[in-house]
Amino acid sequence: MSTRARHGDDVVEVEQGTTALQALKALEAVRGQIVAAEVDGAEWDLDRPLPDGEVEVNSVYADTEQGRAILRHSVAHLMAQAVTDLHPGAKWAIGPPVKDGFYYDFDVERPFTADDLERIEARMQELMRERQAFVREELSKQDALELFADQPYKREVIERVASGSTGADDAQDAPDVAEGEEPVFTVYRNVRPADGDGQGEEAWVDLCRGPHIPSSERVPAFRLLRTAGAYWRGREDQPMLQRIYGTAWESRKALEAHLTMLEEAAARDHRKLGRELELTHFPPEIGPGLSIFLPKGALVRKQMEDWIRDEVLRRGYDAVYSPHIAKEDLWRISGHLENYAELMYPGMAVDQDEHGEGGSAYRLKPMNCPFHILAYQSRTRSYRELPVRLSELGTVYRYEKSGVVNGQLRARGFTQDDSHIFCREDQLVDEVAGCVTFAIDLIRTFGLGRPSRIAISTRPEGKSVGTDEGWAHAERALVDAVEGLDLEYEIDPGEGAFYGPKIDIHAQDAIGREWQLSTVQVDFTLPERFDVSYVGTDGEEHRPYMVHRALFGSIERFFAVLVESTNGAFPTWLAPVQANVVPVAAEFDDYAETVAQALRDQGLRVEVDASDDTLGNKIRKSTTSKTPYTLVVGGDEASAGTVAVRPYSGKQRKGVPLADFVAELAAEVAERRVPELDEA
Amino acid sequence: MSTRARHGDDVVEVEQGTTALQALKALEAVRGQIVAAEVDGAEWDLDRPLPDGEVEVNSVYADTEQGRAILRHSVAHLMAQAVTDLHPGAKWAIGPPVKDGFYYDFDVERPFTADDLERIEARMQELMRERQAFVREELSKQDALELFADQPYKREVIERVASGSTGADDAQDAPDVAEGEEPVFTVYRNVRPADGDGQGEEAWVDLCRGPHIPSSERVPAFRLLRTAGAYWRGREDQPMLQRIYGTAWESRKALEAHLTMLEEAAARDHRKLGRELELTHFPPEIGPGLSIFLPKGALVRKQMEDWIRDEVLRRGYDAVYSPHIAKEDLWRISGHLENYAELMYPGMAVDQDEHGEGGSAYRLKPMNCPFHILAYQSRTRSYRELPVRLSELGTVYRYEKSGVVNGQLRARGFTQDDSHIFCREDQLVDEVAGCVTFAIDLIRTFGLGRPSRIAISTRPEGKSVGTDEGWAHAERALVDAVEGLDLEYEIDPGEGAFYGPKIDIHAQDAIGREWQLSTVQVDFTLPERFDVSYVGTDGEEHRPYMVHRALFGSIERFFAVLVESTNGAFPTWLAPVQANVVPVAAEFDDYAETVAQALRDQGLRVEVDASDDTLGNKIRKSTTSKTPYTLVVGGDEASAGTVAVRPYSGKQRKGVPLADFVAELAAEVAERRVPELDEA
Repeated sequence: MSTRARHGDDVVEVEQGTTALQALKALEAVRGQIVAAEVDGAEWDLDRPLPDGEVEVNSVYADTEQGRAILRHSVAHLMAQAVTDLHPGAKWAIGPPVKDGFYYDFDVERPFTADDLERIEARMQELMRERQAFVREELSKQDALELFADQPYKREVIERVASGSTGADDAQDAPDVAEGEEPVFTVYRNVRPADGDGQGEEAWVDLCRGPHIPSSERVPAFRLLRTAGAYWRGREDQPMLQRIYGTAWESRKALEAHLTMLEEAAARDHRKLGRELELTHFPPEIGPGLSIFLPKGALVRKQMEDWIRDEVLRRGYDAVYSPHIAKEDLWRISGHLENYAELMYPGMAVDQDEHGEGGSAYRLKPMNCPFHILAYQSRTRSYRELPVRLSELGTVYRYEKSGVVNGQLRARGFTQDDSHIFCREDQLVDEVAGCVTFAIDLIRTFGLGRPSRIAISTRPEGKSVGTDEGWAHAERALVDAVEGLDLEYEIDPGEGAFYGPKIDIHAQDAIGREWQLSTVQVDFTLPERFDVSYVGTDGEEHRPYMVHRALFGSIERFFAVLVESTNGAFPTWLAPVQANVVPVAAEFDDYAETVAQALRDQGLRVEVDASDDTLGNKIRKSTTSKTPYTLVVGGDEASAGTVAVRPYSGKQRKGVPLADFVAELAAEVAERRVPELDEA
Repeated sequence: MSTRARHGDDVVEVEQGTTALQALKALEAVRGQIVAAEVDGAEWDLDRPLPDGEVEVNSVYADTEQGRAILRHSVAHLMAQAVTDLHPGAKWAIGPPVKDGFYYDFDVERPFTADDLERIEARMQELMRERQAFVREELSKQDALELFADQPYKREVIERVASGSTGADDAQDAPDVAEGEEPVFTVYRNVRPADGDGQGEEAWVDLCRGPHIPSSERVPAFRLLRTAGAYWRGREDQPMLQRIYGTAWESRKALEAHLTMLEEAAARDHRKLGRELELTHFPPEIGPGLSIFLPKGALVRKQMEDWIRDEVLRRGYDAVYSPHIAKEDLWRISGHLENYAELMYPGMAVDQDEHGEGGSAYRLKPMNCPFHILAYQSRTRSYRELPVRLSELGTVYRYEKSGVVNGQLRARGFTQDDSHIFCREDQLVDEVAGCVTFAIDLIRTFGLGRPSRIAISTRPEGKSVGTDEGWAHAERALVDAVEGLDLEYEIDPGEGAFYGPKIDIHAQDAIGREWQLSTVQVDFTLPERFDVSYVGTDGEEHRPYMVHRALFGSIERFFAVLVESTNGAFPTWLAPVQANVVPVAAEFDDYAETVAQALRDQGLRVEVDASDDTLGNKIRKSTTSKTPYTLVVGGDEASAGTVAVRPYSGKQRKGVPLADFVAELAAEVAERRVPELDEA
């Protein structure tokens, strides 16, 4: 058989044994810093020979997300090799690339220290200079088990893969196994180049699906970041391992930019700012992932809530309120106990008889949907009254593993601006478009600019509920809605939930981080489970489409994103205190109060600093609290009826007539003006 | 020894063995329908001889709450006698008077039917005609146990009383037992009058503290109302008994008035109206005592929430938000696990290791106080910043026994407009006065008029926390606050909680029922338990006073009271739909829409009924939904730019210029006008 390599319209005939890189070069298809290839869509080592027959070959570059993931995974291997060198007897578990970096988990005698990390990083530098090759090999299960005789975690993965019970957490390390086939395991050996013409020396080996960069010298830039404890397979009944996080990039410049961003992010951490600006409080007594909004944070949250509560009504939604608990019966009907129990808090058994039997167990709600369905079903619905849009600020509780809890960004209790729309098939496009428009308006109103990415996730392969026609119609509706709004979007094929396709809307914050915020999701399963219906023009019962949508997503999370994006300097309309009046001396306290009252009369939030602090300290305090406007008033101002305006950002102005400033500020707040985001 | 009876300034010397009634007559102190006496403040049978020495004697009249309770308890005895006659082998448990009536619990083979109730009532009428006397007797424990040999519930009460472990539920049946004394048990025998001069025949006997009316013929009016299952001692691990509720009054007229009120109340039941007007929904799937606000109810609730959320800020409170769950640690510090566990939902154990150990149990919050304390304690507080007033719409969960759950009036989940004020001693009067004023404003704003009763509950005898000075100061502050506002109040001596005195504010609804709504409560225990402090002028830490206050009390409950008081016809500013525009024919749909839009532009809630229903049906539907204004529009109105106004109550007006009506309605809503309550 012959081997033919194709790239775009170009085809070359190559010898058997030609590697992907050789073929790409022959095709003149290498146009940058290449880390791997794609052969017929599958990722492929550059040095791996092409298969027989005609194949399509593409380059994977270091400066793409796909290329970075491959680079990072190779660096993870090098890190594991270094750990093995420095910590003999270490067992290694798994080490996938993650967003912006990678990690690897080890079973070692004691947690890694900062010194360990430095030594590991130094050793990695040495290994890179050794120009080790990443060499792919395929093994049978038996050979793989023997190779990893002293690596229990690898053996466990091999057994799990062989029994077909791999989960998402094994994705990086597990080979694809076709049903009924004997599984083939791939390993990657780190091999030192041979001295002269001898065989290279194997330095380390890992079970891995690959691909990898060809050689350790091809790592442009990396940094180890931190360590953390992590349970094996993320389960608290499993051994605690030691995780090392690192990052790797296509260039020193990209690495430096990322490290700068991490520093900036750390400085803007919403917990840190929450404490400093007295916005939020995370007392250990209540538990991780649960927070209190302090008065200043609560004022911001109230603005968010007031806005969405009024805006949903304005846009033809109906409000509902539902409790935070319900009998398990409800969660059995909804399927949450079957499919979602891991994220639910345990049951609370009540109403039992003297033998501890009967009664019901109650569960905290992880979602609001079943309650909204019950509200919809409170009476028969006619086609005439559809769409029915039910909306609630519903606080839900999800038992996130303690390792992934991250302040208000990933919390155990959070409040969704949750709505469920029940509509006819012919209304679906308009309803989805309405949700997307609403989301865009919300993101802009709160100062996060235009969505940075809109992604439509389609039907997953394998198990999913709903009919082919239903999926086709719903996917089409999502696309039509987004196209009808003239928006750019991406398709994430197969990334929909088993119960329906969805649109995710992302936005970038002020330091360029992208956050998934709003979701619009079609659901084929709950309407079936609850037998939701409406009476059609034919007098018969029909199943409506059901759309879940949350635009803030979670109030707490969106708030935290706002805090981190604005660095705590909220747009004026959201700021807890909008203006701080600072008299230059006690004799001007009265005038300061006059100024404050003029602003308060317009519903503005104002404080007066009549303390006996120095003027400098007062102004500093006002600035530190990131109040949008500090108004300094003394003799000149009092006699002229003006204020000296020091905005938190922007130019100072003296002698601004009080009435002018009141009107300015009132307009800024009424129009909910937000600063322009830099177009990054 | 001599016996002297005193009444006011009058004293008479009476023979030994003189009864209370004889003494009262001698003193000319019977001025109405008398049911019992008070001797030195203790309730006393009219036919019971006075003790030796000088005593104060007073009449207890049938038309007072005290007199009715005695009358009702006597009727309960007669009912139990009738049940025993008709259901031989019945065991009787307890039968106290309750608000507006009485009940008695029986252990019988099957639940009572409506026919049973009729027969029991008929038998009671016979027993009344028999002119049975209620005869008091004192017994030792041994004799009492023998007398009730075949009445296990009575024997249980006797044993419990003897061991000193009686609770509130035994209050009516248990004698007072001084410590160390051999208890004396009182029983009351129903005795038929002797024929001629023989001994009377004992017809029935009950363990009872008394007193009773002298004779069964002295029952002016009674009615048996309904039956219900009830656990013995209210505990679900105890046998299920059959309860019969009844009522008794000082006159047929009073009974009739009460029965009419009950009928009216049943017609206004908030669950019934909630269903009919689509305000609320109580789906069995979520569990008793938990409800969903449907869109129309949610609009009313939103008005309530918006009002209180803005009003607390206006009055110098700070908003906070806290989660609905916290680790048990918090509830241990707060003492809730120790003192309040019965009303708390069970724990949810999470974060445990592989052996099911460690981790924490979380609890749903039954109160918000501990969270507000944590918010206060998020940093050091100075005397300068006191009072700190923290406020939240906090949804709490209390596991009320299923027997007492009553829709939204007594719910298992409800939202308190809960605030906690931390203040210095010198601020306490002003803070309490501020709360009371706020409560009065709230009750008036929502259409319930002036408070019908303000009650101050003082330090209970026996166990209580806090110092003598603290109690004295706090009680004085409550009184000073209320007096400073020129309000009438009552003192309920000893009715305060063990942790502090309080003010309860009651209001009457439109059918004269009184509801306890707002509470202002001083707390001496939580500040100690959490070591709450502020730094005083002396630089030392001091303990602030802590005031809990909820003005709606519970949003759900207040909402239900509003529904029942207004019979679902909310004041316009609260009504879910404020105006309903009804075109007389399809050709006027456009003008109807113009009218609606003119109202919507003022933020008013309007619907247009453009259905193809008949005009009569449309108007009927609008009226049935209790919409404040139905606006009928046809040719005359369209050409003249007017509306025909049909208010839900009040006179119809034709040809009202649209602009005038818009202005009228906008003003009515902006001013939150409510109808005058009849001064009952």
